[in-house]
Amino acid sequence: MRQIAFLLVAVATLVGGVVAFTVPRTGHAHQEAAPIFVTEIPPGYRDWRLISVAHEEGKLNDIRAILGNDLAINAYRDGKLPLPEGTIIARIAWRHVPSEENNKAFGGAQSFVPGEAPPWYLQFMVKDSKKYAATGGWGYAQFDKDGKPGPQSDLKTCFPCHQAVKARDFVFTRYAP
Amino acid sequence: MRQIAFLLVAVATLVGGVVAFTVPRTGHAHQEAAPIFVTEIPPGYRDWRLISVAHEEGKLNDIRAILGNDLAINAYRDGKLPLPEGTIIARIAWRHVPSEENNKAFGGAQSFVPGEAPPWYLQFMVKDSKKYAATGGWGYAQFDKDGKPGPQSDLKTCFPCHQAVKARDFVFTRYAP
Repeated sequence: MRQIAFLLVAVATLVGGVVAFTVPRTGHAHQEAAPIFVTEIPPGYRDWRLISVAHEEGKLNDIRAILGNDLAINAYRDGKLPLPEGTIIARIAWRHVPSEENNKAFGGAQSFVPGEAPPWYLQFMVKDSKKYAATGGWGYAQFDKDGKPGPQSDLKTCFPCHQAVKARDFVFTRYAP
Repeated sequence: MRQIAFLLVAVATLVGGVVAFTVPRTGHAHQEAAPIFVTEIPPGYRDWRLISVAHEEGKLNDIRAILGNDLAINAYRDGKLPLPEGTIIARIAWRHVPSEENNKAFGGAQSFVPGEAPPWYLQFMVKDSKKYAATGGWGYAQFDKDGKPGPQSDLKTCFPCHQAVKARDFVFTRYAP
């Protein structure tokens, strides 16, 4: 039985991707909070297919890939909204760093590649309309490179921010053909 | 029998990814050039797994995803060099454009997403040491969004540029964990 608690929050500044939550839970039924946050990293996400890529400037200064499980990819390609139950969207972010090697080879300072994992390395959105009814049918999560869930301060605003794209089932990322 | 000819070339400025070639071929055996260039888009590449992402500034100003077939992904993860026969690396580039939607939602001009397909939309490297012996064991290709092979002027310098990373089997892209 899992008694580990999680906390939920969101980063309003984590634009263009998936923002993350965790929430306190206990093994005591009478203490159970609504399970609106994803507490485990979905297995196999790094093998999922590509939805899109993005670059965030400013404080984030990262480059990111957005992947989806089969349900996500199929729904995106079919243009289906809302996304089906079981959809999971994964967002991986790396520091946006210059590639000295590439720049040297090509004679110009223009190439940027993934660097270290930032604290907001992994984010997920999991579609389960019953389980995550309180947050538009989506559970949110964030993990660092060690698999540690994101801090409350980072995760508090996930759902509020994603309301901006409620018309697209709360998902910012569009499919890149 | 295919009598269509292709021309192969490379873009020295296409840093960080895969550069592309096509080469003139004819159906006449005595006129056959060494088949050092890839003339068809590898089927199913958009379903391949992610190797990495990159952003090119300057004249290119694109954001890109680098995908690999199973042979590529497995070899990357195992750190195997040279990459095995049959490896294919795909590079998809899109214009690097601001997302007004994201920026509005998050209150800052910081978010960049894929825009239109540039003329150098698709590039591939195909490993076949016998077939492409003249270019380090790799065939190169570039296609636009309509599947048209890249112009000779774009493709001429693929192999020369990739020589800069001969020690990594001529591949610029590193795996993003």
